[in-house]
Amino acid sequence: MSSAAVTFARENQPRFLEELKTLLRIPSISTLPEHAKDVAAAANWLAAELKRIGMENVEIIPTSGHPLVYADWLHAAGKPAVLCYGHYDVQPPDPLDEWTTPPFEPTERNGNLYARGAVDDKGQMMMHVKALESLFAANGGKLPINVRVILEGEEEVGGEGIAAFVREHGDRLKADFALVSDTEMFAPELPTLCVGLRGMIYTEIEARGAKTDLHSGMYGGAAPNPFVALAQIIAQLKDSAGRILIPGFYDAVKAPSSDELKAWASLPFDEEAYREHEVGSPQLTGEPGFSVLERTWARPTLDVHGMPGGFTGAGAKTVIPAKAVAKVSMRLVPDQTPQQAFAQYKAYVESLKPKGIELDVRMIHSGDPIVIGTDNPYIEAAREAMHQVWNKDTVFVRGGGSIPIVGDFERHLKIPTVMMGFGLPDDNLHAPNEKFHIANYHRGIESIIVFFERLGAAK
Amino acid sequence: MSSAAVTFARENQPRFLEELKTLLRIPSISTLPEHAKDVAAAANWLAAELKRIGMENVEIIPTSGHPLVYADWLHAAGKPAVLCYGHYDVQPPDPLDEWTTPPFEPTERNGNLYARGAVDDKGQMMMHVKALESLFAANGGKLPINVRVILEGEEEVGGEGIAAFVREHGDRLKADFALVSDTEMFAPELPTLCVGLRGMIYTEIEARGAKTDLHSGMYGGAAPNPFVALAQIIAQLKDSAGRILIPGFYDAVKAPSSDELKAWASLPFDEEAYREHEVGSPQLTGEPGFSVLERTWARPTLDVHGMPGGFTGAGAKTVIPAKAVAKVSMRLVPDQTPQQAFAQYKAYVESLKPKGIELDVRMIHSGDPIVIGTDNPYIEAAREAMHQVWNKDTVFVRGGGSIPIVGDFERHLKIPTVMMGFGLPDDNLHAPNEKFHIANYHRGIESIIVFFERLGAAK
Repeated sequence: MSSAAVTFARENQPRFLEELKTLLRIPSISTLPEHAKDVAAAANWLAAELKRIGMENVEIIPTSGHPLVYADWLHAAGKPAVLCYGHYDVQPPDPLDEWTTPPFEPTERNGNLYARGAVDDKGQMMMHVKALESLFAANGGKLPINVRVILEGEEEVGGEGIAAFVREHGDRLKADFALVSDTEMFAPELPTLCVGLRGMIYTEIEARGAKTDLHSGMYGGAAPNPFVALAQIIAQLKDSAGRILIPGFYDAVKAPSSDELKAWASLPFDEEAYREHEVGSPQLTGEPGFSVLERTWARPTLDVHGMPGGFTGAGAKTVIPAKAVAKVSMRLVPDQTPQQAFAQYKAYVESLKPKGIELDVRMIHSGDPIVIGTDNPYIEAAREAMHQVWNKDTVFVRGGGSIPIVGDFERHLKIPTVMMGFGLPDDNLHAPNEKFHIANYHRGIESIIVFFERLGAAK
Repeated sequence: MSSAAVTFARENQPRFLEELKTLLRIPSISTLPEHAKDVAAAANWLAAELKRIGMENVEIIPTSGHPLVYADWLHAAGKPAVLCYGHYDVQPPDPLDEWTTPPFEPTERNGNLYARGAVDDKGQMMMHVKALESLFAANGGKLPINVRVILEGEEEVGGEGIAAFVREHGDRLKADFALVSDTEMFAPELPTLCVGLRGMIYTEIEARGAKTDLHSGMYGGAAPNPFVALAQIIAQLKDSAGRILIPGFYDAVKAPSSDELKAWASLPFDEEAYREHEVGSPQLTGEPGFSVLERTWARPTLDVHGMPGGFTGAGAKTVIPAKAVAKVSMRLVPDQTPQQAFAQYKAYVESLKPKGIELDVRMIHSGDPIVIGTDNPYIEAAREAMHQVWNKDTVFVRGGGSIPIVGDFERHLKIPTVMMGFGLPDDNLHAPNEKFHIANYHRGIESIIVFFERLGAAK
């Protein structure tokens, strides 16, 4: 027997999807200054939407960067309070020519909705909004628990604004737990709660050689080459097997419990299918002696994202560039800290400085790794709610990505986070043809309705 | 006592400079398809100019790429014939924001003319044209020797068109020697003839990992990273001291003669001043055991010019790119050949292929290294002409850069080349703020006038 709110959500599925499409049409790319107006437009749209469904004290809060959107409804006396978090900014869509349909023209295909931000995180954030709307509508303008909503527009660029707000105005976000829907299900139809995330440090190494660009014919053999220098450094950051060579980098790494490892080993994971269909490379890489799930959930990793500088056009330009940059990030796991990892990395990179080169090693942004205990009533209620909606046992997993705000909630608000996400492994996050499985959007809304109803009904 | 032609050149200095500026205003960037019209405009302008001064049989010759400009005057019976070569295309001007004045608005400052192409090679090519104009004007429409002119618009992109023309229509370029002004003086006021050039191979290594761009949080630790792969490869191309590690790469390298090495050691070269003022890096690099002049003139070298792919904007994007490219070139010296060097390089790079990565190693263009004997009458006359104009002994040097056409002249036309250049070491070739010392433009014109007059007067 479904609740009135679930029935309402089912009856309104077409409208709920259209409203998500409206939000997806706003190109709120937080890293590109020319899209600042679009980011603001998305915040305004969400504020209006929260007001419309019945939330109170709706406010657009300015930050040093893009604004926060806040709202609350706090009239469920004696009931728990949830802090619903989401982000309305998105990654840049490039390379554009690899999208089948344009990134900001949401398109339905094969039961999926394709658009930049479809699943990360506009679609998952809208599940919260639509669950709240259904609960308000079915219960005479009331919610079963107390709710605060905080939405940010800088998640994809480091989340400085919300981090400062949580640190300085924690009293305005008082709650018993946070709900974040920015993760994925381990497999289709398999209800999943994420109880661990990797942290990260995103850095740049700038290498400078000659004072100006030089001709490689005239100066090759005398002038230092910043790209060769960066290559020499990067080649010493990881060995050929994939093990990170930064001294002390693994010292703080805490192994998962044997129970956790046993649970992971029983998950339906087909390494060969993963290699072929998700990654598509001839072989997988990474540290020897660890499974793919351990490598992507519980081991630190290091990647290079781009190397700007020099000549990148078609054809040939024989330049020894004066400088070049490597964008290098590391994913961190408990109990590593961004501060210590960056200090170890910076000292090591500087120790590798090639002859004739000056280096600048800088942190662009960072986030703490996190593990959530599974022995709290909110995780328990979430697990039961998902079982009810999906009719299957919930699995506990970790995520390889970083959601720095979850660490901030733990550290400054002292509350645990329930990471209940409905993405799928092939959703192409941060890549061309990002999608959200439309059925998951609707079942996600139902899961959240049931979750809140269960918490409201508990003694 | 100056000849009438030299007097004419001196009286017309202001006009000769203005005409060079007109040519420099045409952004004839051969590597950028959107500038193809400008390259054609430069060719048309030069053809009209050659006709105006008195050259005959002026013709714009189409090629597979940008056109050639041909002209001749062949009425000096019993006198030698020179083939004057130059190129009217230029390098891209980026990074634009480092130019003090715009690259295609020629500007006089401190006795220099600043513009892209000022010295490489429009300014030096125009010295030939203006020397011919002065000789025609002062001698009743006659020249002291026979002259053919061939100008190309693809030197900066490999010179395919002229190479094919030399190979297939050598009879149309019949001459006793070639004159190329695309090199520099060893020091200000020091007349210099270049008698050796390095060759080159310009290549790209494309590394492909996953089939699409992936999120480094979710896939870091499992998906291969093409930038890390390229870094690992590049770090194995040269050791930290600068020695190239490609097996067999040095086998064909021929050491300069002991006479040549002795002459180089006596050149006015201040390594510390070179480091500080020309290169500007904390230290110089390159193979141990060789002087700077040996390293840049007589040793092969390897440089990386750019690494396109991934995310190169400001800020952070956590992408593991599906592919990345390294633009790598090598300078070659006698008796290396581009064919053998590329084969050695390609085989070695492929042997370094990291796990999970597919590689494509391709040649973009190449040129042969060359050494010219100093025991021929054209080099001798050039040396005497420069002594007369500059009142100083001429030095013989080599150049670190590549002028592939000089090898083609030797191989297909069987003629030596006189490389009489008037650039200066700080002219910023291929870099922002390229310049030509204006006094050298005018004294270069006089040197060529006297050179041709001497050859015409010889018994």
